[in-house]
Amino acid sequence: MKYSTLFSQTIKTPPREADTINHKLLTQAGFVDQLMAGVYSYLPLGLRVLNRIEQIVREEMNAIDGQEILMPVLHPKAIWQTTKGWDTIDVLFKIQSRTEKEYALGQSEEEVVTPLVMKHVHSYHDLPQAVYQIHWKFRDELRAKSGILRGREFFMKDMYSFHETQEDFDRFYEEVKKAYLTIYKRLGLVAKVTEASGGSFSQKISYEFMILTDAGEDDILYCDACDFCVNVEIAKIKEGDNCPKCSKDKLHKARASEAGNVFDLGQKYPKDFDLPFIGRDGKEHYAFMGCYGIGISRVMGIIVEKSHDERGIIWPESVAPYKAHLIEITNSELRIKGKAEEVYEKLLDSGIEVLYDDRDDVSAGQKFADADLIGIPVRLVVSVKSGDRIEFKKRNKKETELLTFDEILKRL
Amino acid sequence: MKYSTLFSQTIKTPPREADTINHKLLTQAGFVDQLMAGVYSYLPLGLRVLNRIEQIVREEMNAIDGQEILMPVLHPKAIWQTTKGWDTIDVLFKIQSRTEKEYALGQSEEEVVTPLVMKHVHSYHDLPQAVYQIHWKFRDELRAKSGILRGREFFMKDMYSFHETQEDFDRFYEEVKKAYLTIYKRLGLVAKVTEASGGSFSQKISYEFMILTDAGEDDILYCDACDFCVNVEIAKIKEGDNCPKCSKDKLHKARASEAGNVFDLGQKYPKDFDLPFIGRDGKEHYAFMGCYGIGISRVMGIIVEKSHDERGIIWPESVAPYKAHLIEITNSELRIKGKAEEVYEKLLDSGIEVLYDDRDDVSAGQKFADADLIGIPVRLVVSVKSGDRIEFKKRNKKETELLTFDEILKRL
Repeated sequence: MKYSTLFSQTIKTPPREADTINHKLLTQAGFVDQLMAGVYSYLPLGLRVLNRIEQIVREEMNAIDGQEILMPVLHPKAIWQTTKGWDTIDVLFKIQSRTEKEYALGQSEEEVVTPLVMKHVHSYHDLPQAVYQIHWKFRDELRAKSGILRGREFFMKDMYSFHETQEDFDRFYEEVKKAYLTIYKRLGLVAKVTEASGGSFSQKISYEFMILTDAGEDDILYCDACDFCVNVEIAKIKEGDNCPKCSKDKLHKARASEAGNVFDLGQKYPKDFDLPFIGRDGKEHYAFMGCYGIGISRVMGIIVEKSHDERGIIWPESVAPYKAHLIEITNSELRIKGKAEEVYEKLLDSGIEVLYDDRDDVSAGQKFADADLIGIPVRLVVSVKSGDRIEFKKRNKKETELLTFDEILKRL
Repeated sequence: MKYSTLFSQTIKTPPREADTINHKLLTQAGFVDQLMAGVYSYLPLGLRVLNRIEQIVREEMNAIDGQEILMPVLHPKAIWQTTKGWDTIDVLFKIQSRTEKEYALGQSEEEVVTPLVMKHVHSYHDLPQAVYQIHWKFRDELRAKSGILRGREFFMKDMYSFHETQEDFDRFYEEVKKAYLTIYKRLGLVAKVTEASGGSFSQKISYEFMILTDAGEDDILYCDACDFCVNVEIAKIKEGDNCPKCSKDKLHKARASEAGNVFDLGQKYPKDFDLPFIGRDGKEHYAFMGCYGIGISRVMGIIVEKSHDERGIIWPESVAPYKAHLIEITNSELRIKGKAEEVYEKLLDSGIEVLYDDRDDVSAGQKFADADLIGIPVRLVVSVKSGDRIEFKKRNKKETELLTFDEILKRL
């Protein structure tokens, strides 16, 4: 992609309403544009990052045999009345059609997925089932804030599993936990598995996958000597207490952002809809359900909160919008212009996705500043100074190297 | 994919409420599931088809330098008041938050895209621009019907272009028209470019891309001797009249479904938002805009309406959920079971996406019927009868052939 023609260029001044680093940097670098509080457009660079995170999540869900589907945003009122969510879930957006029909906007899909899956589950032979979707969700938040961390409209992966027994849910939960930890690792994040309350979804304990960051909205207590971690909301212990699990260290308190969650839903939804299956004993039973979420747009925001410096974003390779950012330092000698163009074409021919800053009317300093702000992992510079070689620099390192094209290819 | 584990199997009886072939066949074959009138879940097979159509549209939009973005579903009331759509567009879904804020659900995105693009357009140097998104849209239809042809919630590609002059819009429109005709060709459809009224969007003429089908909702008049075609809504001529363009043939009337459209929006939106650019004369001017839609979910329905027989769907190769449908005819001889499994693994290793009907408890007749219903372009059968060879049959042909694995690979 040539930067001169890319829709949405960098912006000099940060948006006045930006209260977090992700909002500020993603807007200034041209990844997102706020339409109103908690609602954003994703511009070409931002959509590429969102799609890469989405694809990593998809691959790991497929790896544990989750099957991808897509459920509606508009839900009929009746299904939300069946589960009593219509009157009890305060973040549920409600809408009335001109024919007086009432709908809810999807904020979680138990009400849709339970009847859908149970249509295909007649006996225990048909269990377990695990379906997921990656789709936009809507929450009527009183205060949407923290950039794309907490939106009224957000992009989410939500998986739902159905089991014959509680034990089979427990077995599958361990599989999902492993898949989630793989996802965070691929995204360059370290997640702590945290016990929390089940919220409005469930009376049971839930598990949250927490990333330590000051932009988060939760406080957690954790132990450095073992994997103990708990949301302070449900903790009966406090900072400085001995770890109740290993007793080897004192508990630390930190601010964190929830990058994923698991709800043990028990049999609530199949019972609410009265959709049983025939068990091994020939009698009717209700399936045990789990719900597993990862906020894709939120994770994009968390990555920026965790991975930036005073000059801009530092994207992990796995989600960067392009592999390399090629800069041409223009010069009266046309020869140089031709060379940058040639490097660009050769990179494209080699299958390397590259953003090429080909602007004529911008200083070298501005190009370097924009490259740092945008945060692509590798910067390549072609100039008179570099001669036949190309300057190679990683976004997260200070050193530069002069390399041949073939050496560059090997590094990428 | 092994059919025994695929979520959503074929259904014997068609849904009672199905009024069209696409609704009936897509439901029976397990591609979609209706949640309520005009609102559907896309199941694994259906989502694969939807994604393939989406990708073809994306490739052709990128080929004419459209840049992909993603705009919000929730829109603030103010932008719809600015363009007077809030009170005049009857299909606009309106929603009130618990903080009394009012929103519209996106049914077209001029109100969002105009301020967004004009943020980046300062002078004529920054024009033209063409951005598009592929996203879900919402229309408060009085009667949602015809399966996925006319949804309250539907998947759409909408592109918006901004130009310095009307002439530049006209030039770009010709490019888009070519891209659209390429898209329909890749989808196995033949579209007629039809003149129609601009609807609520515009006072000008618009262009519709019409596919002849009895499930359609429009009537068109067309000439077989030239490319003349007009929507009867605006026609001042009638069936049997001489073609006003070539005079060589009489006009035919036919039912058709709109698979795409173009609106010449003039300067309405930049004027409504008072967002000018600086022209060559140093003065302020308003950009000329175009809007270009393709209903991705509707096109999926149109393909089924156009391409099916009494036994089921016949997917064009370009959008089929899998390349081949492998059927194992089970037998007491375990040798055969092993062979089908082996063919399946070898196909996967060769990069062929294949649906493998490995069910043990289903008759050969049922497997053949399901394969015809699902409509994957190539059927492969492994049985005692076929020996070391594999029976190869195209969904749209009657003949079968016995081929070696290598011959099969060449055909796929």
